[in-house]
Amino acid sequence: MRVFRTISATAIFAGGALVAHMTIAPLAQSGDRTEAVRQAIVGGTARNVILFLGDGMGDSEITAARNYSVGAAGRMAMDSLPLSGEYTTFAVQEIDPSLPDYVTDSAASGTGWATGHKTSNGRISTTARTDEDLKTILEIAQERGMRTGNVTTAELTDATPAVLASHVASRTCQGPGDMKDCPQDKKSVGGPGSIAEQLIAHNVDVLMGGGAQRFEQQPMEDGRTPIQEALKHGYQIIGSRSGLDLVQPGRKLLGLFAAGNMTTEWIGQEALPYPGNVTRPQVCNEDNRPAGQPSLAEMTAKSLELLDRPTGAGFFLQVEGASIDKQDHAANPCAQIGETIAFDRAINIGIDFAKAHPNTLLIVTADHGHTSQIVPVPTDADHPAGLVSVLLTHDRAPMAMSYSTNSFHRSMEHTGTEVRIAAMGPQAANVVGITDQTDLFRVMLRAIEGTRETRPTERQGR
Amino acid sequence: MRVFRTISATAIFAGGALVAHMTIAPLAQSGDRTEAVRQAIVGGTARNVILFLGDGMGDSEITAARNYSVGAAGRMAMDSLPLSGEYTTFAVQEIDPSLPDYVTDSAASGTGWATGHKTSNGRISTTARTDEDLKTILEIAQERGMRTGNVTTAELTDATPAVLASHVASRTCQGPGDMKDCPQDKKSVGGPGSIAEQLIAHNVDVLMGGGAQRFEQQPMEDGRTPIQEALKHGYQIIGSRSGLDLVQPGRKLLGLFAAGNMTTEWIGQEALPYPGNVTRPQVCNEDNRPAGQPSLAEMTAKSLELLDRPTGAGFFLQVEGASIDKQDHAANPCAQIGETIAFDRAINIGIDFAKAHPNTLLIVTADHGHTSQIVPVPTDADHPAGLVSVLLTHDRAPMAMSYSTNSFHRSMEHTGTEVRIAAMGPQAANVVGITDQTDLFRVMLRAIEGTRETRPTERQGR
Repeated sequence: MRVFRTISATAIFAGGALVAHMTIAPLAQSGDRTEAVRQAIVGGTARNVILFLGDGMGDSEITAARNYSVGAAGRMAMDSLPLSGEYTTFAVQEIDPSLPDYVTDSAASGTGWATGHKTSNGRISTTARTDEDLKTILEIAQERGMRTGNVTTAELTDATPAVLASHVASRTCQGPGDMKDCPQDKKSVGGPGSIAEQLIAHNVDVLMGGGAQRFEQQPMEDGRTPIQEALKHGYQIIGSRSGLDLVQPGRKLLGLFAAGNMTTEWIGQEALPYPGNVTRPQVCNEDNRPAGQPSLAEMTAKSLELLDRPTGAGFFLQVEGASIDKQDHAANPCAQIGETIAFDRAINIGIDFAKAHPNTLLIVTADHGHTSQIVPVPTDADHPAGLVSVLLTHDRAPMAMSYSTNSFHRSMEHTGTEVRIAAMGPQAANVVGITDQTDLFRVMLRAIEGTRETRPTERQGR
Repeated sequence: MRVFRTISATAIFAGGALVAHMTIAPLAQSGDRTEAVRQAIVGGTARNVILFLGDGMGDSEITAARNYSVGAAGRMAMDSLPLSGEYTTFAVQEIDPSLPDYVTDSAASGTGWATGHKTSNGRISTTARTDEDLKTILEIAQERGMRTGNVTTAELTDATPAVLASHVASRTCQGPGDMKDCPQDKKSVGGPGSIAEQLIAHNVDVLMGGGAQRFEQQPMEDGRTPIQEALKHGYQIIGSRSGLDLVQPGRKLLGLFAAGNMTTEWIGQEALPYPGNVTRPQVCNEDNRPAGQPSLAEMTAKSLELLDRPTGAGFFLQVEGASIDKQDHAANPCAQIGETIAFDRAINIGIDFAKAHPNTLLIVTADHGHTSQIVPVPTDADHPAGLVSVLLTHDRAPMAMSYSTNSFHRSMEHTGTEVRIAAMGPQAANVVGITDQTDLFRVMLRAIEGTRETRPTERQGR
C-alpha cells in the first residue's frame, strides 16, 4: 500500500479500534505491568509449597493445549502466573556421571528437582553409579513438621511421585514383585523395598493416583501387601471418586483410583503417517474419564482441604499431570491436550488457594520437553517425516501436530529442550531467567527454610 | 540404597561438596536472587532500544547451542538477561483474518513485533486482506528524532529487516526487479517500490547485512538502482569488513557484505536419514566466514558506535541472527548452532553497552520456533522418522538432533510453539510471563514514549 496509515502511537497503544477486523486480536498487554511484576516479587519464606509438575509439558505442548482449548489468543490458568523462566533439564550418564545425558527421563529429572542433584536416567533419588540415597524436599518438609501430599494421574509408583518418597536404583521397581532391577533394595537384603512400600513407609499424608496393582502385589517378605502395610500405618484407603466424600480429615489418605495409570480425560485419533486425517481435522472427545475416577482438579482440591490446617507448620504438595507425557509418547494429540487441560484445571484450584493464602509458594513446571510440534497444515509436497494429526480448535481453525521423534507405533521420545517454569509467592522470583532443574529444589528449600512445627502463628494462612 | 544420607539441608544448600563426583554440576543458583530480580525491574522510559531477533531461535535451538558451545551446565550471554518470559507467535489467515494461522513466518511475526498488529504469512507491515500499511516502531522512533539501525546476517531485504522500514504485500518483493507479487506497490503505479527502495527511502541511519544483489537490480522506473538511490540519499556504502574501519561517523551507512545471505560462521554435515553419522559424531568447523565479511558482533559494535551520541534523543537498533532459521530449514546443525553462537556474541556486545548505558532497553527474542529437537542418541529400534545428526559437544558427550518436520531435502518447517523473550532495562519487566508477539511492539513503544529530540539531557547516556 502506498499511503501510510496516519495512526498515532497513542491510538495503537490504546488497541482495539484499529484491529476491528480481527476477532482474534491477542489479549493485548497494553498496560505497563512493571509495578505488577514488582509486586509479585515476594522474598522470605513460605508456609506452604505446591509444585505442579506437567510431565513432558514443554512449551510446544503448552501452546497446543492453549490453541485447542481457548484459542491462540486465549489464556490458561498456568499462563497467569506472574513470574517465569526456563530451566535446563539434562541428566548425567550412569557409567561416567561427569558427562551429561542431554535427554532426561522423568526419574532423573525428578531426582533433580526433588533432591537438587543430577542423576542418570531411570534412577529414583539415588546417585548415578554410586547408588547413594539423596534426601528429598518431601523428606525435609516432613522433618520440619510439614504435612505432605503426592498426587498423580499415573501410577503412584511412577517416576515423578516416586522421587519424592523413595530411593531405588531403578524406576521399574514399583511394587514388591517388580524388584529384579533393584536386588540391593529388596527388604530381604535389608533394603527399603519397592517404591510402593517406601511411599507407605514414608507416611506421606496424602497419596492419590493410579497404580493399585503395585500395592496389591503378593508377597512381601513378611507376607503383607503394600495395601495391608498402609492399613497398618493408619492409612484410610479409597478406590473411587465417591470415596473422596467419605475421607476423614486428620487421617492419612491413600487413594488408588485405577489398577494402572488413570484414564485420560479426553480421547481422539492417534497421529498417522501423512496424509492421515489432513482432509478431515478431528475434534476431541472430551468425555473419556470413567465416573469412578476423580479429576486431577478434584484430587488437588481434596489434597488442599486435607493438608491445610489452621495452626502449626504448613504443607508440601506435589501434583503431577502425568499423561501429557504418556500421550505424547503415544502420539495421541487429543489425549495429550486433554491431560494438559486437566492439569491446568488443577493448577487453577492451586492458584485460588495461593491467592487466599499468600504465604504459599506455587510453582508450575515440566520435567522435560517432548515430541509434539505444531507445524503448517501438511501438503503432498511438504509434510512431517513421521506422524501427523490435524485438529479443529476453539478458534475453528486447523492445527497440525507432528510426532516424528520415532517410527510409527514406537514410543515417541523426550526432547532435551529447556522448559518453562513459572511461579507465584515467596521465592517465586528465583524462577525468572535461565536456571537448572536442580535449582528448583533449592528454591523450594529456601522457601521452607526455618519452618518448624513451632513456627510463629503470625505467618499462618488463616 | 538402604541408608539415608545424613546430609543436612544446609549442606545441600551450600552445594558442591556432595556432588564432587560430578564435574558438570550445574551453575547452581544457590543464592536467593529475589532482590536481584527486583533490582532488575526498572520502570519509566528508555533512551535507547536494542532488539536482538534470533530468527527461528526456539528454546530447542537455544539449548542445542548452549550444549554444544559451553556445555549443558554452561551459560551463554543471552542466558544472563535478568527478566524473561515466553510469547505466542501465531499469524492470521489472509482470506479470513479473524482466523489464526498457528505457524507464522518471519514476515507476519515481524509485522507483529514491529507494528503491534497480526497479519498473514508473507506480508511486510501491511494488514491481512485489506493491504493497509501499518506504522512500525522504527518509523515512530524516527518521528521522535531517534537514530535507527537495522542489521542482519540475511539479505537486508529479507523479512525481518524489511518489516521495520517497508510496507509491501509480499516478502518476495525484495528488489525493483522482484515486484511480480506486489503490482500495487510498484513505483510506476504510485507505490513505494520494493523493499530495497523503501529501506533507502526511509533514511535508516545504519543498514548492514547481505543482499547486495537486490540493491544492484536494474532498472527502476527512473533508471536508478537502489544503490544509486542510496548514494543520492547521502549514504556511504561499504562492501566488505575492512570498510567498517573507514566509516565516517555522522553519515548514514549502507553495508552490503554479500550478494545474497551472508556466509554462516560455522559449517558441518547436514542431518541425514538414520543411521546418518550416529557412529561418528561430528565436530563443527567453526571457521567458515570469509575474511571479507564482518561478524554479527562486529556489525553490532559498529552500529552502536555510530548510533550512540552524547546529546539528543537516543536510538533504536534491530540486530537479526537470521541464519539460525535458514540452517534449521536446511537441517544443518553445525551451521545453525554457529549462527546462534554468533548471535550470542552480538548480544554480548549489546549487553556491555546496556550495562554502560542503563537507560537502554535490550530485548532478546525469536520470531517463531523451528524444527530441530534434541533427542536420545538413536538406535536401530528407536530413531527419528526424519533426519538426524549427532554432534560431539563441549561436554565431550554426544548430542543427537532430529530434523523431522519435512522430508529429506525439503525445507524443514517453522513450528507454532511459544518462544522465549528476555530483557533488561526500562520496561523489561513487561516481558515476564506469557505475552503475545504484538505486545513487544507496545513494550518498545512505551519505552520510548515521550522521546523527543528535545529530551532533557539528564536522561542521556553520557
